[in-house]
Amino acid sequence: MKEKFQELKKRVSEVYAINSASAVLSWDQQVNMPPGGAGARAASLSALEELSHAKFTDPGNGRLIAELYDWAQGLGEDSFEAGYLRALKRDHEKAVKLPPELVGEFSRAVSEAVNAWTKAREDSDFKAFAPHLRKVLDLNLRKAEALGYKNSPYDALLDLYEPGATRAELEPVLGKLAGGLKPVIKKIAARAGSVSNALVLGDFDESAQMDLVNDIVQKLGYDFSRGRQDRSAHPFTTDFSVDDVRITTRTQKDYLPMAIFGSAHECGHALYGQGTPKEFDFTPLAGGASQGMHESQSRFWENIVARSLPFCRWLLPLLRERFPGRFDKASPELLYSAVNRSAPSMIRVEADEVTYNLHILLRFEMEIALLEGKLKVQDAPELWNSKMKDFFGIAPKNSAEGILQDIHWAYGMIGYFPTYTIGNLISAQLAAGLDKDRPGWRELPAKGDFAPILSWLRARVHVHGRKYLPGRLLEKEFGEGVKVEPFLDYIKAKYSALYGFKP
Amino acid sequence: MKEKFQELKKRVSEVYAINSASAVLSWDQQVNMPPGGAGARAASLSALEELSHAKFTDPGNGRLIAELYDWAQGLGEDSFEAGYLRALKRDHEKAVKLPPELVGEFSRAVSEAVNAWTKAREDSDFKAFAPHLRKVLDLNLRKAEALGYKNSPYDALLDLYEPGATRAELEPVLGKLAGGLKPVIKKIAARAGSVSNALVLGDFDESAQMDLVNDIVQKLGYDFSRGRQDRSAHPFTTDFSVDDVRITTRTQKDYLPMAIFGSAHECGHALYGQGTPKEFDFTPLAGGASQGMHESQSRFWENIVARSLPFCRWLLPLLRERFPGRFDKASPELLYSAVNRSAPSMIRVEADEVTYNLHILLRFEMEIALLEGKLKVQDAPELWNSKMKDFFGIAPKNSAEGILQDIHWAYGMIGYFPTYTIGNLISAQLAAGLDKDRPGWRELPAKGDFAPILSWLRARVHVHGRKYLPGRLLEKEFGEGVKVEPFLDYIKAKYSALYGFKP
Repeated sequence: MKEKFQELKKRVSEVYAINSASAVLSWDQQVNMPPGGAGARAASLSALEELSHAKFTDPGNGRLIAELYDWAQGLGEDSFEAGYLRALKRDHEKAVKLPPELVGEFSRAVSEAVNAWTKAREDSDFKAFAPHLRKVLDLNLRKAEALGYKNSPYDALLDLYEPGATRAELEPVLGKLAGGLKPVIKKIAARAGSVSNALVLGDFDESAQMDLVNDIVQKLGYDFSRGRQDRSAHPFTTDFSVDDVRITTRTQKDYLPMAIFGSAHECGHALYGQGTPKEFDFTPLAGGASQGMHESQSRFWENIVARSLPFCRWLLPLLRERFPGRFDKASPELLYSAVNRSAPSMIRVEADEVTYNLHILLRFEMEIALLEGKLKVQDAPELWNSKMKDFFGIAPKNSAEGILQDIHWAYGMIGYFPTYTIGNLISAQLAAGLDKDRPGWRELPAKGDFAPILSWLRARVHVHGRKYLPGRLLEKEFGEGVKVEPFLDYIKAKYSALYGFKP
Repeated sequence: MKEKFQELKKRVSEVYAINSASAVLSWDQQVNMPPGGAGARAASLSALEELSHAKFTDPGNGRLIAELYDWAQGLGEDSFEAGYLRALKRDHEKAVKLPPELVGEFSRAVSEAVNAWTKAREDSDFKAFAPHLRKVLDLNLRKAEALGYKNSPYDALLDLYEPGATRAELEPVLGKLAGGLKPVIKKIAARAGSVSNALVLGDFDESAQMDLVNDIVQKLGYDFSRGRQDRSAHPFTTDFSVDDVRITTRTQKDYLPMAIFGSAHECGHALYGQGTPKEFDFTPLAGGASQGMHESQSRFWENIVARSLPFCRWLLPLLRERFPGRFDKASPELLYSAVNRSAPSMIRVEADEVTYNLHILLRFEMEIALLEGKLKVQDAPELWNSKMKDFFGIAPKNSAEGILQDIHWAYGMIGYFPTYTIGNLISAQLAAGLDKDRPGWRELPAKGDFAPILSWLRARVHVHGRKYLPGRLLEKEFGEGVKVEPFLDYIKAKYSALYGFKP
């Protein structure tokens, strides 16, 4: 069996070698590629995808998985082999269940939908995008049928990003969260004027911003000998291997938090990637347990660490150094409030940590209604706007700042949005775990001492890679599932103090 | 037949889509990759190479080539189809002739040889590299046997880089060239003090150097919407497609010519790539007719254009702008002499255009002697040193500045060096062609007007891609083969004027 396992590992590692190449091509596309390169790049990426898919779905792999699965589980749930076979079997089953024709049709439809969306958003013209959204919904339904599900087709899609999660479990979680957040949002709105972000608005040299965020991520624990940070239009993290995990950030000349928290966010993703055990490289065990678990890492570093008062104490001298004269009179407290201003807004990616999850709830509810045919595509903008009014008391002027703002649906991704909120919730559970295991950790950032925090995350989360489903990982390490309370408690405590109201 | 041709084209374009991906990975490796990325990158590159080779050597391709070859030639030598089939047949025959075991052994041996060479050069220890050189020679002999040849195994290797060239044809050419150059070198040596390069030595801000060379290559005609220029340890050009041709350069703080002429050189390669007809993309017709023809482009722009007095007239104001104060008192004539100083030196890549080709002759003679067993590897350093003494009157102190200076042999490349000299010779033939077709072109660079020169190269060379063997291309366009006289005349005229001796 051991020999067969080695054979399987070798075969599968070749698939990951191709996927790693694809990741390099995508990174280059977003970071370096001149406009002329687009055509050839699309051809190369599609050739690699086809080769990878063919190699991965080779029936020989299926036979080896079937032969080895029970043997591997017999070595114990925690063994490398058992985790390897669990993760591979899951991925392999999904890959073989999807008919190549559907994959091809999906890929072509998405390519057209992204082009249409780009133009439709520019023109704020939902009608131009509507037929593409219908097509994407139809293809996602067919995908769900091909993958199979028990209760809702949404479950099959959700499972692609958050394995094991279901609509039935998520609904009450998101409902409870929204119920807890809405009063907080109201109280903040009543005192909107009491917090200003003027300190971080102005004119900040962008190359000084890059120097600053390079310093910050290095201090957080990002290893530049196994990665690099560049600029791109939309910040992202990509793993070519455990030892080459790259991040990008975005600088905005007149708004300093963009780069700082964008970098801290991507750094959180990258620390997860760089913390993956070396022996997981080029195996199905590399990568995060789920999108939600990945997002828990990025949100933890971005919000719970970098948007804390102790962090601002450490950050302020760095800002004074990089932007001479600009922060001389500022206090850590002023910086802290400036980077934590909360206000209802139209755009999800610009939302603060209080309002953010309602943007997700809105999308979750709309996706389900659309997928189940309870909402017609042509009626979607109206529902979007009325939900915005209901959640935040504001409504988009047009589709560009409403239903057309996100690229996800054009990319064919239905069921992805909830992972952002799952990440937020878990990030607070991690902080609660640290409170138990390493009391006093919240003050460490003031000294620029992040290593104890990182080493705890390494031991409790990173070391497992994709060995367990996210639910199982939480249960094993923390004895619980995804919970709303830690996050709600965190938000209430932080923002009641900041805005001066009773929690 | 047309349908079959379309089928063949589709199959082959997928191979080029993979090769383009490999090129991106190699570029990233040399330009961006953090040290940690090396392991995964090697695995990805080797996976892609294997896939590309398998797809290319698929017997189906061989059958289609056999079926289509005569039909295509019937459409006329100049037709796309005829050129396509000629180039593809040549490449395909080479690929199928090489047994996969030999390719694998070669690749492993080279990987070890490069590591050994890196260390051996650091330690200036030829003995440590000798066994690897023996292995490389042995594998090259086996490669030559597999590929087949009429007279010398060297021909089979040479043909990989300079299709159609033979040792028997090259020997008299190189001999005649050396005979013409040696007296010039002696005359220059006798007046060594009359030309100084002090003007271009000093302290030049490296980011200003990058701005400068970006300006220069853009002015020469390099299209930044279909390429980019970065820094790397060794400058190179790489084509991902006709519309994404990237160059790199090297800045040296205390020596300005490094970046300027490095960029002009790579720009010459890139103009060839960017000038390839769009319909050649992802076909065997993309790329240069040969290494020598490619080098003729880079040398033409680097030496004949950029090291001319008119070019220096145009360059000087740019230098004054980028390095304020530094060139105020300099004249174009002083700049011209500073960038054309000639002196015997140990290192090929640092050699000037007069002495350069003797470095190549030395390597050509040694490669043949080694390959034919007339020279034992252990005796090679001694022969190297005595040839240096003979050619230049100087001898290396150690192997690092002698026989270990170049990476080519460690890379497994025997028969590559002559292409540099072929390129130099053709570059002078191109200049002579321009003299006929566009009299007065030599003064154009003074006005920064390079477009007429480029458009002539486009029409006479670039437009053909790999449609003809280099010999056939020269014959068709210029009615001649590779000639020594134009280059010798150019060198004699230029350097006798510069150093003040009778030509």
